[in-house]
Amino acid sequence: VRIALDAMGSDAAPRTEVAGALLALKDLGSDVTILLVGERAAIEAEIEAADATDRDGLQIVHAPDRITSSDSPASAVRRKPESSIAVGLRLQQDGKADAFVSAGSTGAVMAGSLLLLDRLPGVDRPAIGTMIPTVRGPILMLDAGANVDCKPQHLVQFAKLGNIYAKDLMGLERPRVGLLNIGEEAAKGNEVSLETYAILSESELEFVGNVEGSDIIRGTCDVLVCDGFVGNVLLKFYESVAAYLIRLLRSDRKQGGRRERLEEIVRVLA
Amino acid sequence: VRIALDAMGSDAAPRTEVAGALLALKDLGSDVTILLVGERAAIEAEIEAADATDRDGLQIVHAPDRITSSDSPASAVRRKPESSIAVGLRLQQDGKADAFVSAGSTGAVMAGSLLLLDRLPGVDRPAIGTMIPTVRGPILMLDAGANVDCKPQHLVQFAKLGNIYAKDLMGLERPRVGLLNIGEEAAKGNEVSLETYAILSESELEFVGNVEGSDIIRGTCDVLVCDGFVGNVLLKFYESVAAYLIRLLRSDRKQGGRRERLEEIVRVLA
Repeated sequence: VRIALDAMGSDAAPRTEVAGALLALKDLGSDVTILLVGERAAIEAEIEAADATDRDGLQIVHAPDRITSSDSPASAVRRKPESSIAVGLRLQQDGKADAFVSAGSTGAVMAGSLLLLDRLPGVDRPAIGTMIPTVRGPILMLDAGANVDCKPQHLVQFAKLGNIYAKDLMGLERPRVGLLNIGEEAAKGNEVSLETYAILSESELEFVGNVEGSDIIRGTCDVLVCDGFVGNVLLKFYESVAAYLIRLLRSDRKQGGRRERLEEIVRVLA
Repeated sequence: VRIALDAMGSDAAPRTEVAGALLALKDLGSDVTILLVGERAAIEAEIEAADATDRDGLQIVHAPDRITSSDSPASAVRRKPESSIAVGLRLQQDGKADAFVSAGSTGAVMAGSLLLLDRLPGVDRPAIGTMIPTVRGPILMLDAGANVDCKPQHLVQFAKLGNIYAKDLMGLERPRVGLLNIGEEAAKGNEVSLETYAILSESELEFVGNVEGSDIIRGTCDVLVCDGFVGNVLLKFYESVAAYLIRLLRSDRKQGGRRERLEEIVRVLA
């Protein structure tokens, strides 16, 4: 298996990527080759500095350019054909890699994948899947922001994509697929969710029905299906609440006021 | 001012309602009359037990029936004309009360209000407003669940309703109105939010633009406008996260495991 890895995607690139590649090689064994895509000199320096004993599985594919957050995601791969994302995706397109992984611009990777790799048969639109924490462990939510206006067939396709992901990457034999909605009953929801519910009920998936906002943290499903508008709002809200709480927890001992503010928030809502 | 109060709405009715009415009278002074609507004998017993010094502002309007959670909200007021909600709304309809307040079925109150009181001129649909906590204090979110499929003009009307509410009940001179969306820029969002943004930008409101999921807890607006689908999911999610946290905080000293689980959740998301 040959995995192309964007070495220029993260804030601390390529240090993080090189460290991650070395960890992955240790985990995955000798069947795997990792193609580090990015500025050759910078990557070589990081490999040198990492002082790893086994770097046989590593190769470098030079890509002099880099997509940044100021590039328009939709056109970035076309405008910067020598960027690490464009070069990495072309490796997969040309059959020189089996997969491409990037911590860089989600939008650019998605738009570039559509342009160079196209979609699987039966999939009209790509979705962004993201793992979100629950009390029973992480679950997969999709779409987290790629498609803000969805038709029922799109949500059904997301359910099928999520089902495959949960089987192959989360190791679940029969993932429980839930539809994010405003009530448990089949008759609840907006037009899109009513029709989606009907199709999913007839599907071969392990459809556990509607999942309300209050059920998410309980982990009542493994794959949570929603449109990209709701998914994006929910993900960003969850992240910000968590970031706020971690600040509160850390400052707990020093400042009593913050703890009280947290307790006020939970009191109002509980 | 005469306020009709559903005395049978809460779980501990009519005790909570009688206690609340007595508190309100103390606060609001002698200009206010509260009409307690519900089972006369039960209300009289609670007033007796409350042993209040000043009950001159209290009147009882007998209503022998009661709407419960097993009644269909849409038809409850029609099917139970002698319920406290139906009787209370008719007091307002007949000009015998200036307002009606209930802690009972939100859906039944909303459907009954539409049936008996109709809407204000220029308002096509009622919205459910709810106060949600932020680090800067509570803000008003609407719609929290009444309208799951909204057109731009509905969201604009919610913005105007919220603006009035924030002025009159939150005491804000010029409330900051925000539109829940998936990005800050005007060009972000789904079809409905793009059009809503354009209309609100031209309006006389203090429109502060798009509010992302991550901005909510920061309290960057006073009135947060969204459709009832997103609003309902968000509200229920927020409530459940808060309820979970309060459990964790309370069990903090006893069980280290729970605290660790919370820290795992915030670590994954932060």
